Amino acid sequence: MKKSIGSKALIYPSPVWCVGSYDKDGNPNVMTASWGGICCSKPPAVTISLRKATYTYNNIMETKAYTVSVPSKNYAREADFFGLTSEKKTNKFKKTGLTSAIANKVHAPYVDEFPMVIECKVIHTLEIGLHTQFIGEILDVKVNAAILGEGGLPEMLKVSPILYAAESRTYFGVDGFIGKAYSLGKAIK
Amino acid sequence: MKKSIGSKALIYPSPVWCVGSYDKDGNPNVMTASWGGICCSKPPAVTISLRKATYTYNNIMETKAYTVSVPSKNYAREADFFGLTSEKKTNKFKKTGLTSAIANKVHAPYVDEFPMVIECKVIHTLEIGLHTQFIGEILDVKVNAAILGEGGLPEMLKVSPILYAAESRTYFGVDGFIGKAYSLGKAIK
Repeated sequence: MKKSIGSKALIYPSPVWCVGSYDKDGNPNVMTASWGGICCSKPPAVTISLRKATYTYNNIMETKAYTVSVPSKNYAREADFFGLTSEKKTNKFKKTGLTSAIANKVHAPYVDEFPMVIECKVIHTLEIGLHTQFIGEILDVKVNAAILGEGGLPEMLKVSPILYAAESRTYFGVDGFIGKAYSLGKAIK
Repeated sequence: MKKSIGSKALIYPSPVWCVGSYDKDGNPNVMTASWGGICCSKPPAVTISLRKATYTYNNIMETKAYTVSVPSKNYAREADFFGLTSEKKTNKFKKTGLTSAIANKVHAPYVDEFPMVIECKVIHTLEIGLHTQFIGEILDVKVNAAILGEGGLPEMLKVSPILYAAESRTYFGVDGFIGKAYSLGKAIK
């Protein structure tokens, strides 16, 4: 018997991602977002939802492009900072000492120190309510060579992404390997 | 200097969620999906993307409702099984021995043994490409009392959700607490 805790934007896990964009003068900005996820395999695409009040919202409406950088656990402090303040008030790259790198498939910056980034071109925009959803086609995935493993793919435990628990507003990390997908369940089959 | 690994539907982390729906005869189905995420706070809403070929796609097109159950790590085998086979071929609840519970806000079933579930009413449908995106308003969050913690909210480490690494097709778990959001970054501010 489950207990109802009401209608909330709450499900586990949610990601902690840093969205990079340029303003109309070409100044780089980055903000932290947890409302998003992959939404299509072909074309590969990801969603990010933003409030209209954010600097990033206006940037993406202008440029139709963004990046999503994945902070590793050891950058939790910087990732949290990117969500705490607005570029309207603070130059976030300068303040954290992190580097704004230039994406080469889209007009957007990314966080060079973070281990993984995707470069996205906006293909759909949808007003849902408080948040607007941007669907971005993923034109490239870029990673630090140090986190690559078997098959030339990024290793989860080396990327060490951060998870967000909404409502309780807490961050968590990634634990050990559980098993292979499309394989574990064969025992039942 | 980052290395390009090409255009892929790949970013960490992605969730492992089990989508519950009824077919037109009221038979419960559940399938595993990793393409999704929260997309709005007001109304609270979540996206799930499915291929048209799935049984669940047709169910949701018919009922305009679904649930998302969050399997904990100890149900990784069942969650994987739910993604391995189609209801067209196997009664998945029967085969795994898990219980189909009846949601009370929408016409959809959920997995009773899993610690957390959201009940969703479809408010938008968007064709993206191989996948169709369903945006569901979250009408209720239900949890097992055993996983509730401070403030009457579900505890991440008790829910113990599963993460999916696409491409390498592997599952991972959640590690310890990193810190409080909207707080860690104040050291920089």
